[in-house]
Amino acid sequence: MIKKVDHIGIAVKSLEDALPFYTDVLKLPLLGIEEVASEKVKVAFLQAGETKLELLEPLSEDSAIAHFMEKRGEGIHHVALGVESIQDRIDDMKKNGIKMIQDVPKKGAGGALVAFMHPKSTGSILYELCQSNREAE
Amino acid sequence: MIKKVDHIGIAVKSLEDALPFYTDVLKLPLLGIEEVASEKVKVAFLQAGETKLELLEPLSEDSAIAHFMEKRGEGIHHVALGVESIQDRIDDMKKNGIKMIQDVPKKGAGGALVAFMHPKSTGSILYELCQSNREAE
Repeated sequence: MIKKVDHIGIAVKSLEDALPFYTDVLKLPLLGIEEVASEKVKVAFLQAGETKLELLEPLSEDSAIAHFMEKRGEGIHHVALGVESIQDRIDDMKKNGIKMIQDVPKKGAGGALVAFMHPKSTGSILYELCQSNREAE
Repeated sequence: MIKKVDHIGIAVKSLEDALPFYTDVLKLPLLGIEEVASEKVKVAFLQAGETKLELLEPLSEDSAIAHFMEKRGEGIHHVALGVESIQDRIDDMKKNGIKMIQDVPKKGAGGALVAFMHPKSTGSILYELCQSNREAE
């Protein structure tokens, strides 16, 4: 059901300040940078084995990532679990009593289909179900 | 240099309470449970693709995991990056100005060799370098 850890979402104040640690010190390949207007974030993806590290810089004070950093500071924001047939997986979760933040998947960065579970159902971790549209990666 | 995300360390109050979400809802294989006396924790490993989720239950109020939960509650404690030749990687980190919590690796759960980077050097994330002794996994 869960194929892999698709990505780990990391809240940063500034991609420019955060990236050198990942690219120059850890020497992880930078896959690309894109803006996700609906989430008001700029996102950088780095590859670490089959998992991506997703650095998230808020583009607005009212983005969810900005609100997260006001409370918790920079750090890990969410963990995305790679699945196929995401709608079936959402339905499975709900049958098992897991509260979903999205009952139907929404478009995320990289064109993936995503849906978050409520942290109250998961021991305070923001888990995302993520169906990549780039399975070749 | 970084082969993969080896594991994600997750602080939980009780393995017994936390495990059913992972084993029964997400249906991740439970690889085993062990006590790491040096860290005063009981650890459960679950497999998600090439990455393990490591649930950490404190066995004492003076364990690092108990202190973490006093401040932050349950949630993600660290991210372990899989490497080979861990001492060389530690030396690389230090040459790049990264403050290490361990200058020489210590034995972690599952017999791995591990060394943590100081979160002040990494944008507030507790990253671990981890050289598994079970490369066959």
